[in-house]
Formats: sequence, structure tokens, C-alpha cells
Amino acid sequence: MMVQVISSVNEACAAKFHHKTAIVIDVLRATSTIVAALSAGAASVLPAETVMDAKSLHRPGDLLGGERFCRRIAGFDLGNSPSEYNSDTVKGRKVILTTTNGTRAIHKSTRADHVIAASLLNAEACAEFALELKRDIIIMCAGSHDEFAIEDGLCAGLLLHHLRKPGDVFLETDDFGTAMESLYADNRDRMETILMNSASGKRLLKLGQKSDIACCARVNTLQEVPYLVGDVLVPRR
Amino acid sequence: MMVQVISSVNEACAAKFHHKTAIVIDVLRATSTIVAALSAGAASVLPAETVMDAKSLHRPGDLLGGERFCRRIAGFDLGNSPSEYNSDTVKGRKVILTTTNGTRAIHKSTRADHVIAASLLNAEACAEFALELKRDIIIMCAGSHDEFAIEDGLCAGLLLHHLRKPGDVFLETDDFGTAMESLYADNRDRMETILMNSASGKRLLKLGQKSDIACCARVNTLQEVPYLVGDVLVPRR
Repeated sequence: MMVQVISSVNEACAAKFHHKTAIVIDVLRATSTIVAALSAGAASVLPAETVMDAKSLHRPGDLLGGERFCRRIAGFDLGNSPSEYNSDTVKGRKVILTTTNGTRAIHKSTRADHVIAASLLNAEACAEFALELKRDIIIMCAGSHDEFAIEDGLCAGLLLHHLRKPGDVFLETDDFGTAMESLYADNRDRMETILMNSASGKRLLKLGQKSDIACCARVNTLQEVPYLVGDVLVPRR
Repeated sequence: MMVQVISSVNEACAAKFHHKTAIVIDVLRATSTIVAALSAGAASVLPAETVMDAKSLHRPGDLLGGERFCRRIAGFDLGNSPSEYNSDTVKGRKVILTTTNGTRAIHKSTRADHVIAASLLNAEACAEFALELKRDIIIMCAGSHDEFAIEDGLCAGLLLHHLRKPGDVFLETDDFGTAMESLYADNRDRMETILMNSASGKRLLKLGQKSDIACCARVNTLQEVPYLVGDVLVPRR
């Protein structure tokens, strides 16, 4: 099995996704929020590329969520903090979500045979599910502002760590994947510190959203695997 | 002092280089060959982007060196193996060098105030010299086939390690730089193994050039710092 890792959404081209399982990562915060929403009982999450798309896709009973410049969008029900997506708010409902990087990364991955949304919260569950799908894997780090984001790279390394674990699979990766495995190995005991010191983390700290960073750093605490069916992500576990 | 790291020549844009010291890395093999040539007494190395440019810039007494698809170019005096650039061959002579990635990366960096060519062979000397220049630094990993090459990332991490060493400089880096520091920290005792297993390393192994990889993995064994003056690299130490 070959596992390629893409450093940011900019580096993605459709041809790389054919016949593969795509695992999309945006740790701070889109994919963390998506798995939090599905774990809290949301029926599905529809990733929308633009605010206008999100509004036009909204039907009665749906929730509108998302951010621009790390802040909730005017008129939306929810922002992009995983903690907002609790059971009282989202249970049984469809969420239309638009964010700057993460939802764009999911849209870029749709040529793949399977698309999964991963975060630190559900990395182990995602790796197990991806192994069951028996396809080569392409891990896409969404990044931020068109650049590599270290928290997404850490999560790619964590995924590779769990993909290798069963031992019965001959797993190959590319140079960038090998580098991300080292990044994880060197920092596995201080994930939250790395997130706090990352470029995205510093932006969230400035906006008073420190608790979001801590929340997104809880490694392997959720079992839900958001899986793309048509245009929505639904939980697989 | 801010140190940014660019993952491949594709990611470079001129605006990022203004008022900075650029350190260009192509471990396998262009910048290793350049420092080997200057250490062996070559008067200068002129990086040329194309084979045609190289030929047109050649004057009587100059040496033509370089590769395409990892092999010596027809009619050229030398290939791109550091070991070919020994004192008997290059002493006192100007070398016109064209390679697939490294020379292109040097050309992309010319908007910087200062341009240095670094490799594992001379990383510590490059870091010391860059600190003396007292500019923010941009480290450009040349990469290979427009993608990240792990050996260049390792060298970026080694450079950051030596840039931090004096302790009296407040050094910041970006997310990619932090990741490359971890890559180096996790692999400092097996640099040659990483090079052998890299995508570029595997290509060279197939072509029977294993000794080149071992040669390029000799960390901090040379003191020369190739420094761009006009259109040629000359030794600074």
C-alpha cells in the first residue's frame, strides 16, 4: 500500500486522487469540527466552498456553520469551534459548513474513490477504516493561507503511525510522508504545545480561542469517521 | 531573526527573497557538487539554467559540468558527482554547471541580498556565515521533480540547528521550519540511511551512484561557503 502526503491544498491536483482513498486533514479547525458534530449526533455535514453556496444549500431545519478570518459568519447559527457542536444543538440535524481551508480541501479530493475527514481526535479510527478500504491512500494536509500548517503535518504523521501498526501491511510512503512521521515521532508527547505555537494556533490565541486548540489536541478520543457520500459527510465507525 | 523554509523550488516567489539572505539546498547533488568544486580549488561556479545557456557561457579554459536525468550531458567535461570535482581537474578553473533542480533554485533566489549554496557537507559553515550577514533568512529546499526532497529538508533542519547554536540570537521560524528541525532531530544519527531511502537516493542507487550518496552525507566536513557574486559562486570561509 502506498501512502502519499500532500503538504497543502495548493499542491493538490485531481490526477493524484484517482482510485485512491483520500484523507483530508484540517486540525485547526474544520475537520475537528466535522468529527465533533457527527460525534454529537448531527445527521450529516455538507461542506460548502463559499458563504453564498452555504446559504443557497440551506433548507429549513438545517444549521449554518463556518468561519471567515477565524470568526463566525454574520447570520450563521454556528462558528467553527468544535465545542459549539454539542448534542443539544446538532442532534439529528444537517450542518452546512463553510471554512477557509478545510471545506476547500474536501472539494479538491472528490475525485478519490473514498473521502474521509481526519483530525487528531479521530486519527486512529480513520487509519483503521482506511486500511479496510484497501486502496492506496493520499493524505491531504489542508494547510492555512496556502502554506503548510504544522498541526496538519502532525496529524498526517499520526495517521501513518496507525496505518503501520497492524504490521501485516507493507506500507510505503513518499519523502514528505517520511518527514511527517519524524515530525510526529519527535513531538508525540507535546502535541498541544506544538498546536499552541503553530501559526494557526497563534491566530486563534489572539482571538481568545485557546480552549479550541486544547479541544482539537485530544488525540484519538473520538471514534466517528466522517465519510463522504454524495455531497455530505456521514459518520462511519 | 526570522528563518523561513520553502519546501521546493515551485513554492518560491520573488517577493519572499527581498532584503534577505537566501540559502539554497540541493543535497543530491547540485549544491554538494558546488561546494566540493570550490573546496577542490575551482575559481568559481557559474550556475546555468539550461544546457544551451551553459554552452553559450563557456569560454576557453572553463569546464562544463552538469546532468539531465542524473547523467552527464553529452559533450560536457564533468557530470554532477562531487567526487569528479577533484583538485587535479578543477583547480583554478571556472565551472559552468547546469542541473535539473539546483541551478534553477539558485536563479530563483537572486532577488535576495545574499545567496549561499548549502549542503550537508558545509551546513555549519553556512549557518555561521549567514548569522554574520545579519539578515532574515530564507532557506530554499530545491526538491526534485517539483516535489519536496527529504534530504533537502534534513539539511534545512541541520542549518536551523546550527543557526540556533550561538544562543545569543532570538531565532524564529515558520511551521515548515519547525517541522524540518524535528525531521533532523529524529534522524541525526542516520542521515546516510535517510538519503539512501529517499526518492532521489533510490534513483541514484539504480544508476549505480551509491558512492555519491555516501559522499553527500558527510555532515560538516567542508568549510567553504559558496557565495553568489554577480552570476558566479565563489568561496567564502
